[in-house]
Formats: sequence, C-alpha cells, structure tokens
Amino acid sequence: MNKSGNILLAHGGGGRLMHELIRDVIVPRLSNPVLDSLEDAAVIDVGRGPLAFTTDSYVVKPIFFRGGNIGRLSVCGTVNDLAVQGARPVALSLAFIIEEGFEIAKLEKIVASIAEAAEEAGVYIATGDLKVVENGGADGIFINTAGIGRVIEGTRVSSSNARQGDAVLINGPIAEHGLAIMCEREGVEFGTEIGSDCAPLAGMVGEILRAVPDVHCMKDPTRGGLAGALHEIAEKSRVTIEVHESDLPLTDATRSACDLLGLDPLSVANEGKVIVVCPGNRAQKALDAMKNHRYGREARIIGEVSGSRAEVLLRTAVGGLRIIDMPYGELLPRIC
Amino acid sequence: MNKSGNILLAHGGGGRLMHELIRDVIVPRLSNPVLDSLEDAAVIDVGRGPLAFTTDSYVVKPIFFRGGNIGRLSVCGTVNDLAVQGARPVALSLAFIIEEGFEIAKLEKIVASIAEAAEEAGVYIATGDLKVVENGGADGIFINTAGIGRVIEGTRVSSSNARQGDAVLINGPIAEHGLAIMCEREGVEFGTEIGSDCAPLAGMVGEILRAVPDVHCMKDPTRGGLAGALHEIAEKSRVTIEVHESDLPLTDATRSACDLLGLDPLSVANEGKVIVVCPGNRAQKALDAMKNHRYGREARIIGEVSGSRAEVLLRTAVGGLRIIDMPYGELLPRIC
Repeated sequence: MNKSGNILLAHGGGGRLMHELIRDVIVPRLSNPVLDSLEDAAVIDVGRGPLAFTTDSYVVKPIFFRGGNIGRLSVCGTVNDLAVQGARPVALSLAFIIEEGFEIAKLEKIVASIAEAAEEAGVYIATGDLKVVENGGADGIFINTAGIGRVIEGTRVSSSNARQGDAVLINGPIAEHGLAIMCEREGVEFGTEIGSDCAPLAGMVGEILRAVPDVHCMKDPTRGGLAGALHEIAEKSRVTIEVHESDLPLTDATRSACDLLGLDPLSVANEGKVIVVCPGNRAQKALDAMKNHRYGREARIIGEVSGSRAEVLLRTAVGGLRIIDMPYGELLPRIC
Repeated sequence: MNKSGNILLAHGGGGRLMHELIRDVIVPRLSNPVLDSLEDAAVIDVGRGPLAFTTDSYVVKPIFFRGGNIGRLSVCGTVNDLAVQGARPVALSLAFIIEEGFEIAKLEKIVASIAEAAEEAGVYIATGDLKVVENGGADGIFINTAGIGRVIEGTRVSSSNARQGDAVLINGPIAEHGLAIMCEREGVEFGTEIGSDCAPLAGMVGEILRAVPDVHCMKDPTRGGLAGALHEIAEKSRVTIEVHESDLPLTDATRSACDLLGLDPLSVANEGKVIVVCPGNRAQKALDAMKNHRYGREARIIGEVSGSRAEVLLRTAVGGLRIIDMPYGELLPRIC
C-alpha cells in the first residue's frame, strides 16, 4: 500500500498496486468462496428456473449521510429491485469508479457497510471491478452493483399486473431518504432528525409473498418518489390508482420539513419502501405480514385501484380528488 | 426531448424526462422482449447448470477512438470476461453515468455501437440504469455492463489450472488497443495507423473449446497487458510461463510506436485478445481453431509452461532469459 493512504491513478491500472488494493482493502471484508477465486467471471450456482437480473449505479452526494452511506445504498437499492420483481436475491457484482486522491480509509468504511448490508440481505458479492479516474474526472466515488436473483416459484409480480379492485399498500413513512440527503447537502436542520430509510427489503418481501402469493405488483419508490412509482404502475397496467391523503404514512418531521422546503413528499425518494398492489380481499394479510417485519411496523393501506384510465389521483383529507402528475425530473440530483 | 440536444440533470431524475430519454434514445436500438418490459429487474431464462457472472466499468478517454468507442468496448470487455471463463454469454446489464451537458447525439452513437456489438456477440441487453451527475461531476460518460453467461458443459477453465507441459497461445498482434488510445489522446501519428483490436471473442472461444474441450485456462490481457495477464496465471497456477520473444505477434507499426514512446508492448492493454493455455499436444488443434476464425487469423503459439516457480520469463531472440515483472500500475490511465 502507498503510504499516503489515498487512491492513486496507478491503483486502477491492472498492475501490482491494484491487486494489492483489492486483496487488502476490498476482498477481506466481502470474502466468500466465489469472490475469493478472483476469476474474470464468477461461476455461481443459482438452481433452476427463471432468473431476475438488475443493475444500478450509485452517485449519491454526499456519500455519507444520516441513516446510511453509498455502500449500504448500493446493496439495498439493487437487492430491492430484485425483491420487487418477486425474486430472492442471490449474488451481486460490485464495480467502483474512484477519483484519484480518494481516501482509502473512506473506501474501507464503504466496503464494511457493503459487507454488513449484504449479510443482512442474504446475498454475496460474486465479482467486481475497480477503475480509477484522474482528479476531477469523477466526484469521489461511484458504485455500480448488478444483482442476480431467483424468481420465487408461483409469483407473477409485474408493474403491468395491477387490476381494478386491488389494494395499494406501503410499508412505512415516505420521503425520508430524499430529505436526509437534502439536509446533509444543504446543512439544513429541522430540529427533529430525519435519517434515510435505506434498508434491504428482500426478507420482508419474502414474508409478504409467503402470506399472499398472488400479489399483483410491487415497486420501490426511489427516484421520483411515491408519485413516480405509482405513475409507472398506472401507465403499465392501464389503471387508475387512488391514494388517500389521510392514510399516507408521514412523520411530523417529514411533514414540516417538506412544508418548509416547499416539497411534495409524494415526489421525494425513498430507499427502504415498497409499494404492494394485491387483490383487495388479501390486503389485510399482506398488511399483517408487513407489520410483523422490522421494516414494516408502520405499514398502511394507502389506496386502491379504482378504474381503467391510466392516472394517479389523490383523495384529499376534505374529500376532493386531485390528479398527481408524474414528476418531470428529480427535485434533487444525485439522490442515490 | 429538450430542444438543446444535451443531457440535463433532470434526465437522471426518475421522472418523465428520464423515461422519455430511455424510451426514445436508448431502448429502441437495444429492443428485445426482456428489456422492453422495463421492469425493475429483468426476468431471464438461462437454462440449467452453473452461471458465469462478471462486471466491468468503462471510463475510457477519449470515448471515440480508432477501432471502436466506449459503447463497443463496454460490450466486448464484458463478453470477453465471460468467454474466458468458458461461458457462452447470454445477457448484459447496461448502466450509464452521464455528465450534465453531454450531447444526446453522442449517446445515440454509443447506443448504436452497443447494439451492433451485442448482436455480433450473441447477447442481449436485459436491464439498465441511467444516472446524470452535474457538470464537472464526471467526465462525459461512464458505462458499466454486468454479464451473465452459461458455463459450457465439460469445460473447466480457470486461471489456476495451468500445468507444466502446457502450451501458451494468443490469437493475434498485441498492444493495439492501448496504443490506439494513446495516439488518440496525445494526437501522436505513427505514419501507419494503429487501431484498437476491440472485439467480442465469445464466438472464437466457443470454437476453440469445441476443438479442445480440455483447455486449462484462458485470459483476456486487458489492463496490464500480456505481462499482467500471464503473471496472474503464473501466480494462481504456481507455474513458470516462458514466452518466446521471436514468436510474439507484433505488427511493425506497433513495434516502432512502442520504440518511439519507450513502451514495453507486453504491458500495453488489448481488448480483442485471448491467451489460451492448453496441454502441449493439443496446441495445434487450438491454433487451427483460432486461425479459422476472423479474430484469430494471426494466432500464434507464443510459449509454454516450463516449471513450478510462479514467474514469467521471456526468452529473447538471442536465446537469453529475462524475468518479466508484473506491471506496477497502468502506463496510461483510463484505457478501458
């Protein structure tokens, strides 16, 4: 290791220095028989049947924030994309793009968070890559994870499967990830502390699917928030989704922060939430499964699929109906 | 689409603008039933048996160069990592990190190259992601691809499988990718044009494995060049690899460019080369299979596994033996 404790361009060069960095800093915390072989491609066994496959890059700024960091996020985000597809996550790839001069101590903290989140999520890191770009060529560190999962037998969840009469549920308070990032970035304080909800949801989703195998669709409302995710479901399934404002789980801190900043909590990103759409007569079972899990204690039924026109409506506290637009772009860039 | 034809921060926001960019610019060129569903995770069928899984980020600078561009590279590099693991590539993920202000016309060219290379390699893009960072937050465009392949039945290739008595082959002239990037970046001209060898090798590797199923190891000599790749094999297999200088395939243009720049061609990156290590008595069959393929016309047997001490030796044209060191770091950052 170089003495300065910072990433050098040569760390990305495929030579001795890169191998030492990978061997000493990255692999020990993530060790498993597949990764340890450090072949060009990992050979993994995932049993039979269809696979789920997904990818996400993480460019969040700042990289450390209340409730998580880019490492935890890069595991949770990808695991959650597999989970909402009705899959049990199995293995992740892990690719770093690091700016020259980045502190190796920070990389170590990030790798430790990756290891911790992967263990909680029940996945292992199967393969990886590390690139270094010159000072100014990137902003600190970017991470990409791709994930492979096994589709749970008998499930057929899809964003296009929502049906009239379905109930719409969510596992807890919304908008916390986006607000946590915003507070951190802008140095805003709200009195009450708002932390990211960043969490791996595969365990809870597995419990929901065990209780209600005929869930129609699931979606994690990340960039674009609840409004963006409900719009995708409404458009793909060609249904009207009606959400009840008074049933939306929102903490007082979130509500006042959003008021203060002029934000609509429906459009703010989440990283530990899942929207579940299931037949109305199964909603209570799904809700019970959520509430039994640590990440679903404050779950709620928030609305229903009420028609066949592709739109999202909000029934306000006083009984009016408001059309919820698809957000145009994120309020805040580099949220994940 | 916005009228300016450049990427806006809002293109990465998970809202309507991002969906339009993905729908209009990216997906049409890469269309297939799996990708078109645009679910959070793709559901793919890869048959039975063990899978190969790999990831690579591409940060090459410049993004367009003689012989290829970052798009072609991002398919070939990942496909080749699967191929050298003895796997038939099946599906790729595709994740963009784009700097605000990047020209959409360039993105379109890159996506077209991705589509073309994927078709040639026999893979499809199954899932993707797009992030936008603010101006100065990244250098133009970075791409990550992760790849899934099916390990070809009966093959057991691994960097740790080289055995004494094995022959070492390569499918053609070395050092061309690295030199092409260097020329492009520094504006150097060598009279003769040197272009990147960037190519998807899965087809040729399949032919080699059909002819010689007991290939012991394969490796693509990218960052770190031939020297780096041979070192990895020597160290993992704990063998001595002896390479014959006079048998190394090197074009005159490469030789004089390396002389001029003071570079060792053994350490310069390739993107369309594969090192094959197989039992000595099967070397001719492997060589024939290579030569029958468009990417192996100039294949050569370049050396052999000659002992059990983990090192790489070069037998010079005059008969001496020189130890080849593992490169310390890449000569040139952002080569791939």
